[in-house]
Amino acid sequence: MSVKQVVVGIDIGGTNTVFGYVDRDGAILAEDRIKTTHYDEIEVYVAALYEKIMVTRQKIENSIEIIGFGIGAPMGNINKGTIEHPAGLPWKGIIPLADLFKRHTTLPVMVTNDANAAAVGEMIYGGAREMKNFVVITLGTGLGSGFVIDGKLVYGHDGFAGEIGHTAIRPGPSNRDCGCGRKGCLETYVSATGLKRTLLKIMADSIQPSELRKYSFEELDAELIHEAAKRGDYIARRAFEHTGRMLGFKLADVVAHTNPEAIFLFGGLALAKDLIFEPAKEYMEENLLHIYKGKVKLLPSELSTQNAAVLGASSLIWSLKET
Amino acid sequence: MSVKQVVVGIDIGGTNTVFGYVDRDGAILAEDRIKTTHYDEIEVYVAALYEKIMVTRQKIENSIEIIGFGIGAPMGNINKGTIEHPAGLPWKGIIPLADLFKRHTTLPVMVTNDANAAAVGEMIYGGAREMKNFVVITLGTGLGSGFVIDGKLVYGHDGFAGEIGHTAIRPGPSNRDCGCGRKGCLETYVSATGLKRTLLKIMADSIQPSELRKYSFEELDAELIHEAAKRGDYIARRAFEHTGRMLGFKLADVVAHTNPEAIFLFGGLALAKDLIFEPAKEYMEENLLHIYKGKVKLLPSELSTQNAAVLGASSLIWSLKET
Repeated sequence: MSVKQVVVGIDIGGTNTVFGYVDRDGAILAEDRIKTTHYDEIEVYVAALYEKIMVTRQKIENSIEIIGFGIGAPMGNINKGTIEHPAGLPWKGIIPLADLFKRHTTLPVMVTNDANAAAVGEMIYGGAREMKNFVVITLGTGLGSGFVIDGKLVYGHDGFAGEIGHTAIRPGPSNRDCGCGRKGCLETYVSATGLKRTLLKIMADSIQPSELRKYSFEELDAELIHEAAKRGDYIARRAFEHTGRMLGFKLADVVAHTNPEAIFLFGGLALAKDLIFEPAKEYMEENLLHIYKGKVKLLPSELSTQNAAVLGASSLIWSLKET
Repeated sequence: MSVKQVVVGIDIGGTNTVFGYVDRDGAILAEDRIKTTHYDEIEVYVAALYEKIMVTRQKIENSIEIIGFGIGAPMGNINKGTIEHPAGLPWKGIIPLADLFKRHTTLPVMVTNDANAAAVGEMIYGGAREMKNFVVITLGTGLGSGFVIDGKLVYGHDGFAGEIGHTAIRPGPSNRDCGCGRKGCLETYVSATGLKRTLLKIMADSIQPSELRKYSFEELDAELIHEAAKRGDYIARRAFEHTGRMLGFKLADVVAHTNPEAIFLFGGLALAKDLIFEPAKEYMEENLLHIYKGKVKLLPSELSTQNAAVLGASSLIWSLKET
C-alpha cells in the first residue's frame, strides 16, 4: 500500500484549538482538539498540542507521511511565523509560534491569520469555489476577516490585512473595552462574547422575562442564547438583532472597500442562521451606496465550523509543494 | 519627423474637468480644462469637452497621433464604461459615458473611477513607484479612494471597489446629508465641501472672531479657509483639525482592511499640508490596532493636483496597447 501524504491543519481559536490530518483532496482523515484556554504558557501549549497531534495519528489506518504543519491563528503573520499581541488568546506579546513548533519537528511550519485560513478553505473546498472576489468573516470568540481579491488572499504590506474585528464602531472613547486595549472595536459587539455583552445590557434595560436571567455571564454562551431565541425569548432575540445590525453596518464598509461578490459568515454565531443573517443583511443594504445595493450576497460558509480553517491552514503547506 | 503617439487623459471632477495629451513617458504635451458644473446635459458636456480637447491639440507643435481616450470619473465603471449615479456631478442615473464619447470618435474610450486613475498615476509616475500595496485618497469636491494590492488596482466584483467616501462615520440617521441620498458619509466631513460645512458649524457654535465670517457658504472654498488658517484664524484651524481627525479615524479602518505600506493624500485639501496631515496622522495612529501602529506612512501625492488622475486615466489606454 502506498504512503499517503498529509498536512496537519491547525486552527487556533480563543476557546478551542482544532486540528486535522488533511490529504491532498481535502479529506480530513482524523481530527481532534485541545482547549486553548487551558494553557497559560505558550511553550506548554505547543508541547501539549504537538503531543495530541501525534496521539491522534494513531486513529488513521492508512500509512501516512506528514509533510508539514499549517496553522491559522488570530494575528498570525505569514511573513514572520508569529502571532503578535493576540487579543483573544492567553499569551501576550510577539509569539514566535513557528519557531516554537520547530522545536518538535524538522518539517515546514507555516502560520497565518485564522480568518485568512478560513477564506482559503472556503475558496478551495467551500462556497467560494467559483469566486474571485469575496470576504470571509469568522464569528467565534472574536471576529476575524479574510479578503480574497482576484483569486488571491490579501496579506498587505506587513502581512496583517483583514482585521476588521478591530475597527471601531464609532469615534470616541465612551465605548466597550476590547481585549486589544482599545475601545468600541467591532468584535466587542459582533462575536460570541459581544453577543453575551449585548444580552446583558438589554437584560439590564428591559423588564421582560427571559429564561436567560438565571445564567451568569460566565455560564452564558452563543448556543444558549441561540436556543432561547429559537424558543421566542424576547431578550435573546433582541440581542441577536442588535448584533446583526452592528455587523451589517460594518459590512457596508467592507463592500465600499473591496466590492466583493459575496461575504461568507463562518463560525458559531453564523449557525444561528436567520437570527443573525436577517438583521445583518437588512442593515448592510440600508447602509450600502446605491451602486452596491442588492448585488452583494451574504452567505453562510459551506464548510462545517471547524473544517474551513483547518483545511485552509493545511493549504499553506500544499501551496509550498506547488511552487 | 516621426509621429508621436499620445493618449488623452481626462479627469472629471465635481468642479473642473481637466485633460492632457500624454505621451508614452508620461509627459503632458498640452493640457486644459472645462467647468464640469457648467453643463446640465451630459450630451452637451461631452460635445463641449471633445471640442475643447480638439482645440487644445493645436497647442502641440509635434506631429501627434491620438490613440485613445482614458477617463477617470466619480463612480466610473471600467467594465461598462459608465458613470453610475455620481453624487458630486450634475447628471443623474447611469450615464453611458464611453458610448457618448464614441459619437465623436472611433478610437478606444475607457472609463474608470477618478481615484483609481489617480492611484495608477501615483504608481507609474509618483511616490508609489516602488510600492506594491498602497491607497490613494483624493480630496476634492468629494472624497475618492483607489486601492492597489500586490501591484494591481482593486476593481472588485462589479468594478466599484474603493468608494470609502461613502462609508458612514457612525451608525444612525442624525447625520449630515450626503449627495448620494444617505446620511453621514465620510465625504460630508472630509472633502473641500465637508471642510466648509464643518467651518460653518464651528462658526455657529463659537464666538471667536474670524476673517471668514464675511464670506457666504457659496463664496467659501478650501483655499480661502487654508489661507485663513495659515494666518492663525482660530475657526479655520479648528475646521481643519476636525476634518483631519475624521479622516484619520477612517484611515484606521482602511489600514485594518488592506494593511497598506502607505496612504497618499491627493487633491486640493492635501495642499494644506500639516493642517490636514497632522490631525489625520495623529487620529489614525490613535485608532490603529497595535500591530499596525507606526508602520503605515501617510504621504502627500508626488504628482501635482491635476496630473495624477490625468496620467492614470491615460494609462488605461496604454495598458490596452500592451495586451
